[in-house]
Formats: sequence, structure tokens, C-alpha cells
Amino acid sequence: MMNFNEKTLHKESIYEGRIVDVSVHDVELPNGKTSKREIINHPGAVAIIAVTSENKIVMVRQFRKALEKELLEIPAGKLEENEEPENSAARELEEETGYKTNQLTKVTSFYTSPGFADEIIHVYETDQLFEGVTYTDEDEFVELVEVTLDEAESLIKEEKIHDAKTIFAVHHIKQQRAQANLKND
Amino acid sequence: MMNFNEKTLHKESIYEGRIVDVSVHDVELPNGKTSKREIINHPGAVAIIAVTSENKIVMVRQFRKALEKELLEIPAGKLEENEEPENSAARELEEETGYKTNQLTKVTSFYTSPGFADEIIHVYETDQLFEGVTYTDEDEFVELVEVTLDEAESLIKEEKIHDAKTIFAVHHIKQQRAQANLKND
Repeated sequence: MMNFNEKTLHKESIYEGRIVDVSVHDVELPNGKTSKREIINHPGAVAIIAVTSENKIVMVRQFRKALEKELLEIPAGKLEENEEPENSAARELEEETGYKTNQLTKVTSFYTSPGFADEIIHVYETDQLFEGVTYTDEDEFVELVEVTLDEAESLIKEEKIHDAKTIFAVHHIKQQRAQANLKND
Repeated sequence: MMNFNEKTLHKESIYEGRIVDVSVHDVELPNGKTSKREIINHPGAVAIIAVTSENKIVMVRQFRKALEKELLEIPAGKLEENEEPENSAARELEEETGYKTNQLTKVTSFYTSPGFADEIIHVYETDQLFEGVTYTDEDEFVELVEVTLDEAESLIKEEKIHDAKTIFAVHHIKQQRAQANLKND
């Protein structure tokens, strides 16, 4: 395996924000030349695949300023400082949807935009939900939406669901049910 | 459906880079209060699900400075100015892997990090590959890796494949083959 490491020769901090930090690195490339890398640092996030007792997938509709439009997504949020991802997932689920759970299973973690950002999403799942209380962050406005797997697949086809973590969630549930059906055959 | 729009009261441009622009918006929330939104603007990207005549998935290993490590990903790259996504996909595929194609089918488009960035990835697929010439950007170093679907699924389980678009690609191929098998049964 070749070594493609890019050593930072100089790092300029551009911005330290509430959620993201921005920096530009002058790097030495494997061929000895130099280049610039624009890097966004993010605290990481959690997302929750939650399925109700009626087999519906729990989603939230919210306005995304970066896109200037509303998206339909699975519940998610950024990690608070020193917060364990699993605790963060339980907290975000309740804040955004009102559902509580005491049984979260880790599904996987993935990077969303490795070309320029270090954001990683830790994904958890549960089908053990009970009613809690919604109390979103004071600057967060979300609407609970519950959809069947068939509805979710149609929304993906129509590109009405079109964010990476939510498409992942729908694929994951579909594969899980397909495997359960195989076992029952 | 409630209206959650967040009107920009003031926009401060923080950085205009080669790949990303960074700005901070003071916004008016639905409840009349104000908040800040940190926004990363990105030109958008393409990713290619390419399958060889031996049924292997074409991937590339490359160093990702934002993560300070190498990732195994499907071929991808950012849109150049005024470039049609399909042309971009064909170009990136050849640049990164040496494979040419004249038959790309659109799969879907999705946002990667809607909480803070407007990056959208347009995903194309092809199983019609012929040999071209690799000529990566002068600051890009990639290694071609071809894996079977089984190998790719194991790599996801081990979190050795762990970026959103590549997991999407593997799920997509798996579902496609499952459907083809159903038809053949």
C-alpha cells in the first residue's frame, strides 16, 4: 500500500465558531510539491433510526438554513462537549420527537464529507419507544413525521428524502426486514 | 405544515476559498427570536458506482486531510464551474481509476451534511467500463482498489469503509442484485 500522507507545513486558523472551525493547511504532497487544504472541523453528530410499535419510521421535518429549504430527516444532532454518543442519541431523539428510549443499539459510524470536513455521524437504532416530552433547543423548530417503509422508499425515489443519513436509515431497515423474512421462510 | 423559514437579517462572509465559502448568518427564527447559523457553501460533487465485468466494485484509497487518514471510497470529486454532473462523473471516474465509460445512469442525489453545509452529491452508476488513462489532478493521489460485494459488506461491518456515499453504493448494489435474483427465481 502506498503512503499518501500529507504533512501540514503551516496551518492558518480562519474561524472558530459555535459549531464549526475552519482552517487552511499548507501541505506537502507525496511528490514533494505543496498544496492547500481547506478543512472544516465539526464536533461529530448522532442520528437515530427509531421505529414505532406500528412499524413506522420516526422522522422530523425542519428548515435547513444551509439549503434554504425544509428537509425530512431521521432525528439527529451534534455531540455536546464530553457527551457520550449514546447519551446524545437518546437526548436528541427525545428533544426532537418526544419519544424516549432506554434501549439504543449502535448501527455504525460514517463520515459525511471526507473531502473537506471531519464530521462523523454515529448511528443508533431502537424499536423500543415510549412517550416523553418534546423540548427542542430554543433555536430549533421541528415537526414530527412518521412514515412506513414503503412511503419512505417512495420519498427517496421522488428525491423528497435526500440526505445521506436518512437514505442510509431506510436502506438499513429494508435490509433488516428482508433478512427477517428470509429467516421466517 | 408549519413554516419554519429562517430569514437572514445579516450575512457576514468569513472566507472565500478554493473549494468552500464560509459565512455566518444572523437569522430570525419562527418565534421572532434571533440566532446565528454557520454555513459552508460547496460547489457540489459527483460519485460513481462502477462495477467491472468481474462484478467487482471500483474504489479508490486516498488520504483525507480533514480526517488525517486514508479512506476507501467510491470514485468522487467536486463539480467544476459550469460542468454538467454527468460529464463530471465520467471525468472523475477516468481521472481516479483509469476506467472510461460512455454509459452513466443517474441513481440519485443527496445532501451530506445539511446541518451546516450545502454539499450535494449526484450519484451515477455504470457497469460498462473500458480502459482509459489515469491522470489525477496534480495534488491528488489515489490507489485503485476493486472489491466484491461480500468484501465490501465485510469492510462496512469492520468500519473500514465508513463514508456515507460508499455505504450508499454498497447498499444500492446489494438491493439491485437482490431484485435481479427475485426476478430470476
